[in-house]
Amino acid sequence: MSVRAGIVVTGTEVLSGRVTDRNGPWVAARLLELGVDVAHITICGDRPADLTAQLAFLTEQRVDLIVTTGGLGPTADDLTVATVASFAGLELRVEADLEAHIAERVRDWQSRSGVQTDPVATAAGVRKQALVPVGAQSIAPVGTAPGVAISAQPARPAILILPGPPAELQAMWPAGLATPQIADAIARRGEHRQETIRAYGLREAELAATLRNAEGQVDGFDDLEITTCLRGGEVEIVTRFPAEAASSYDGLVRVLLDAHERQIFSTDGATLADLIAAALTGRRMATAESCTGGLVAARLTDRAGSSAYVMGGVVSYANDVKTGLLDVPAEMIAEFGAVSEQVARAMAEGALHRLDTDTAVSTTGVAGPDGGSPDKPVGTVCFGIAIAGRDTVTVTRRFPGNRASVRSLATTAVLHLLLRELT
Amino acid sequence: MSVRAGIVVTGTEVLSGRVTDRNGPWVAARLLELGVDVAHITICGDRPADLTAQLAFLTEQRVDLIVTTGGLGPTADDLTVATVASFAGLELRVEADLEAHIAERVRDWQSRSGVQTDPVATAAGVRKQALVPVGAQSIAPVGTAPGVAISAQPARPAILILPGPPAELQAMWPAGLATPQIADAIARRGEHRQETIRAYGLREAELAATLRNAEGQVDGFDDLEITTCLRGGEVEIVTRFPAEAASSYDGLVRVLLDAHERQIFSTDGATLADLIAAALTGRRMATAESCTGGLVAARLTDRAGSSAYVMGGVVSYANDVKTGLLDVPAEMIAEFGAVSEQVARAMAEGALHRLDTDTAVSTTGVAGPDGGSPDKPVGTVCFGIAIAGRDTVTVTRRFPGNRASVRSLATTAVLHLLLRELT
Repeated sequence: MSVRAGIVVTGTEVLSGRVTDRNGPWVAARLLELGVDVAHITICGDRPADLTAQLAFLTEQRVDLIVTTGGLGPTADDLTVATVASFAGLELRVEADLEAHIAERVRDWQSRSGVQTDPVATAAGVRKQALVPVGAQSIAPVGTAPGVAISAQPARPAILILPGPPAELQAMWPAGLATPQIADAIARRGEHRQETIRAYGLREAELAATLRNAEGQVDGFDDLEITTCLRGGEVEIVTRFPAEAASSYDGLVRVLLDAHERQIFSTDGATLADLIAAALTGRRMATAESCTGGLVAARLTDRAGSSAYVMGGVVSYANDVKTGLLDVPAEMIAEFGAVSEQVARAMAEGALHRLDTDTAVSTTGVAGPDGGSPDKPVGTVCFGIAIAGRDTVTVTRRFPGNRASVRSLATTAVLHLLLRELT
Repeated sequence: MSVRAGIVVTGTEVLSGRVTDRNGPWVAARLLELGVDVAHITICGDRPADLTAQLAFLTEQRVDLIVTTGGLGPTADDLTVATVASFAGLELRVEADLEAHIAERVRDWQSRSGVQTDPVATAAGVRKQALVPVGAQSIAPVGTAPGVAISAQPARPAILILPGPPAELQAMWPAGLATPQIADAIARRGEHRQETIRAYGLREAELAATLRNAEGQVDGFDDLEITTCLRGGEVEIVTRFPAEAASSYDGLVRVLLDAHERQIFSTDGATLADLIAAALTGRRMATAESCTGGLVAARLTDRAGSSAYVMGGVVSYANDVKTGLLDVPAEMIAEFGAVSEQVARAMAEGALHRLDTDTAVSTTGVAGPDGGSPDKPVGTVCFGIAIAGRDTVTVTRRFPGNRASVRSLATTAVLHLLLRELT
């Protein structure tokens, strides 16, 4: 029997679209990993009536667990605990130990930061943050806001209240799950698995056709909950299934590999970044970027430990820099244009030579919105892949969308080209 | 009288946290600009019962308008139109013109992409996408999925159905608003303004104290709906108010500037990127990055037209590259360490010289998780700002959080340092 959950994200800054919520997706992913079915995520501002309405909605939807994020600060507009307590019909009481603990954390922070605040207002804020519904369990704060775990009752779900700052929420998550209030609520879940397959250069329409065929070929296909989604030029195929349907999943993987072996680059959850890092181990890597303007280097160095194989790179936006730092002949740029496979080749080879590496990639293209021409429209990008001891490979591609889209798709493309050359 | 709206985001990939929703925040921001009050955003997967429950919830909450995003594709799991029609008690009919128009777009796409799909399945998909509730108005597709606008009835709000791909949704938004069904629903709104103030280096606790003081000093303070939020080291103060409360808002701005003039860098909505672009006009800019690994160059070149002032940069992850491409003496690195103001200065000056520019910035630091030491812990970053004809400025800062946080905060910091030097 499956356990259903709802997530309530609070905060006017999220509701109004000024801040992208990171908590809803994070909590949803963790719950799914635990085999809990997430039915709804709702977002509300800092108004008690709207929050109460969402709690009532999720209760009516018979979820077993509600997780709320945000609204636990010391000020008056942070009202999650009071609103949830009122919804659950529980009185609030100050937990003396918790009050002392929070007060100490606030003092610590003040002495480190040197910020002075009004002592009366500060004490009132600390006291507010130490209010816990009677019968609920507090969860020790990582910042200054404690969490709260409230047991399920026949007429309402268990409720886990967590703070809004993602680092605090994530650090407090294990302690929240470990409370008897929440552990009981999720104990009834069945065991589920979730597996991810990743492909590049595969169109959604082709994949949809393969999945339609799989329906007739794979025994127990209906036990597989398959979601496909396109992100940054890659297709991700995520399948959720009860542990006992593992052989159906294996059948699906065989059908997908038969149809799209060239495009599927990962069946074990590994991302492009994982595979690139593995392929570059023991190598010395350099980048030479024009249209991507540093994004390729930034994506490579995003990974902890990348300094072992990333030596560096050159962003050669201006033609002078292509010539001065990457030895691209000025006459070559004049003859073929900066966006050409000739220049892409010279950039990659220049980076290989100048940064003394054994591997280098280059990008040069028209990111837009201006700079396109009939034969090199916006979205045209040339790539070079130089590997010591081999002929340099060059490729030209055309990407759809606006400037940000072209830059991002080109960054993904050059890393896939590199991966293919290295493996 | 204010008009209230709810937004329903559909898609299992969003609900499960695998994809970050971009539509909810975008639609919310547009509605707020129009003076419409967004009360709830709800996210559901591809299950009709959950979508129906969310529509019923928003109707009970007496919103005047529901905007749905996603679930308009040709396949069976795309069920928004059918579910909304059933909720609204409207029959579906194929719109013949629309069917012909979609079929033509699909044929175009097939001939351009070379992908062949089963003609029977394709025709069924086209027919499905051409289904429109009786009495509703279709909105011409930008991709292949048309939108739908449904009038308000006494017992339910107006409903605007839009596709999930953000580029399609955004392109179809004006046409959706212009339908009489939606225009009528939002016609009753009062005129509101929204203004944004941005600060850097201001702690939320200090700002909270200033806002508490402002409450007593500014006439009509209660008409101002103020939201503050911290993002990437900056504080954003967004105020929404009825047009007639403009003088109260002006009073708030004066109080804020009196207290935090040094930290507030924008009162007219301009972002750091806007101000940097303005300050760099007519200049030649270069970057020299170690720990930020290309992020500074990427952020600068994110902006259309940046090639006018960004010449390029060097990502010097390895010490050899700092020496080889930026002329940082190897002995200096040996003596002071790669993370030092001496090296930051030499990197910035090296970039200025090697890329022949008049402006250059550098970053060198410990992004973590490894590489920290007692006197240079993880998060320590040294910056250099070199401007032709002036002494180079160097600064050391320490940033909290993980590798991604340190890299991102360091990128923002160096651009603020540059802005301060240039203005």
